[in-house]
Amino acid sequence: MSQGGEGLVVDAALLRQVILAQPFTHWTGLEVVKAEPGFVETRMRFRPDDMSQHHGFLHGGLVGLLADNVAAYAAATLIGDVVTSSYTINLVSPGVGDEFVARGRVVKAGKRQATVAMDVLAVKDGAEKLCATGLAVILPARAGSSGAAEPAS
Amino acid sequence: MSQGGEGLVVDAALLRQVILAQPFTHWTGLEVVKAEPGFVETRMRFRPDDMSQHHGFLHGGLVGLLADNVAAYAAATLIGDVVTSSYTINLVSPGVGDEFVARGRVVKAGKRQATVAMDVLAVKDGAEKLCATGLAVILPARAGSSGAAEPAS
Amino acid sequence: MSQGGEGLVVDAALLRQVILAQPFTHWTGLEVVKAEPGFVETRMRFRPDDMSQHHGFLHGGLVGLLADNVAAYAAATLIGDVVTSSYTINLVSPGVGDEFVARGRVVKAGKRQATVAMDVLAVKDGAEKLCATGLAVILPARAGSSGAAEPAS
Amino acid sequence: MSQGGEGLVVDAALLRQVILAQPFTHWTGLEVVKAEPGFVETRMRFRPDDMSQHHGFLHGGLVGLLADNVAAYAAATLIGDVVTSSYTINLVSPGVGDEFVARGRVVKAGKRQATVAMDVLAVKDGAEKLCATGLAVILPARAGSSGAAEPAS
Repeated sequence: MSQGGEGLVVDAALLRQVILAQPFTHWTGLEVVKAEPGFVETRMRFRPDDMSQHHGFLHGGLVGLLADNVAAYAAATLIGDVVTSSYTINLVSPGVGDEFVARGRVVKAGKRQATVAMDVLAVKDGAEKLCATGLAVILPARAGSSGAAEPAS
Repeated sequence: MSQGGEGLVVDAALLRQVILAQPFTHWTGLEVVKAEPGFVETRMRFRPDDMSQHHGFLHGGLVGLLADNVAAYAAATLIGDVVTSSYTINLVSPGVGDEFVARGRVVKAGKRQATVAMDVLAVKDGAEKLCATGLAVILPARAGSSGAAEPAS
Repeated sequence: MSQGGEGLVVDAALLRQVILAQPFTHWTGLEVVKAEPGFVETRMRFRPDDMSQHHGFLHGGLVGLLADNVAAYAAATLIGDVVTSSYTINLVSPGVGDEFVARGRVVKAGKRQATVAMDVLAVKDGAEKLCATGLAVILPARAGSSGAAEPAS
Repeated sequence: MSQGGEGLVVDAALLRQVILAQPFTHWTGLEVVKAEPGFVETRMRFRPDDMSQHHGFLHGGLVGLLADNVAAYAAATLIGDVVTSSYTINLVSPGVGDEFVARGRVVKAGKRQATVAMDVLAVKDGAEKLCATGLAVILPARAGSSGAAEPAS
């Protein structure tokens, strides 16, 4: 992903192209709602037949995916191509909703890594409820990078 | 999930039923290779058309899923029905392999929660390579539970 | 620690007594600046001769202590006596300052655990700079508790 | 800290000098028991009058310190001068013991960061009991580094 502007290195249009190039993210139907420097919001419709666990809630693995992805995308707005180094997710309520919104906000971006806070919210009948909160460390994707596994944008 | 034995509350056969009851986990094709008291190993074949990100590696969200799931399953062998409270994942190398193996080992199981260490390994031409390592806190699923989101078994 | 009011189970006066009863926290000189339901702010003066690492910054272990403590105190305002289950700290800038402020905010309090977000800020010449951000899971301290180690209040 | 050998960049003698140069670590009385490439063991005697919380256990902040320090030291054996980027600690049993042993083992060391697993054990009457387990991400300390706060060695 090449750098494309001042302040906003990666914009929403570019993130949408990234999703199309990522089979698994594409499968989820994830949409980029907003991308500003250091902030991204995504949305995903809940497809119960594909995405639930045995109680009918959104599977926790997909909650984690939403959190991880939005963190990488938020960092990408400042850094460009990135890889996820680590993330911590705290699941605070069951994933019950018609759709899920994820918001990533860069807490600090340095030369070597960005720290991102992210929330995942369940939306039901228009009301948002916090489902998970987390922190991620995202690295610039460099040739010969090590210690990271997920080129995300 | 009812308790079913001495030592091993949930066995491999029961975990396989759980997977069938979880549409998203079922979609991944996850298999339970081994389930002992406090230890579970799972395996997932890599389907590039469904599961990759834009560099062709296993998507980091699915690495996280494997780690989260195997942690919950490992705790379930001792506790029964569980929910994930939180997990931390460190991604240490790209998800390049024909299949992926996840191993969860309960570090400490108490009355209120279990701490589980888990590894995800990429398997290519029979050789394993560490892809991610993590720690999870898993809670017993109780009526009226709060502070947790993922009934996993 | 007995419950003492509506909304605010543990107040600033009680937290100050807790500090006096904790030799290590007392050694740090930690002060409780504010305690509201679900929110606590603490402050610690930097004593370079006691608290620095070899570059003269506040030792990272003390940054972690401030974060851990304020998370436990914030949870205690809602829950009463608590123990820390786990915490994650991201260190985002060196601990350079005359004093350090920690703020803990309960993200979600359930019956079984509270999730708390916390920041540690370095204060130099009156200006605050973010030093670390983190997330903690705090449990009610119960008889026979397991899986937790730090009765904090 | 200059590099000093093959395999073992930082050895036990050098780590002992680092402790002397770190007022807070020196205050704890921390000793380096063993340092091999990618592995360090430390030990700390428990001084109840200085180090306890109000129940008489080792304060959780000092458990965190032991874990954070040993992770940085283990990474330093391979990398040289390091800074801590982040760590996650799970506290699994109260800090009851005469002394505390911490062990850090590098899981993966890359060019940009090292992932380290660490355990803290309470030792009472010669028997070890797991007190905490964690994961840390440690960075090489470079001029102009950002996103990290704790020059640890």
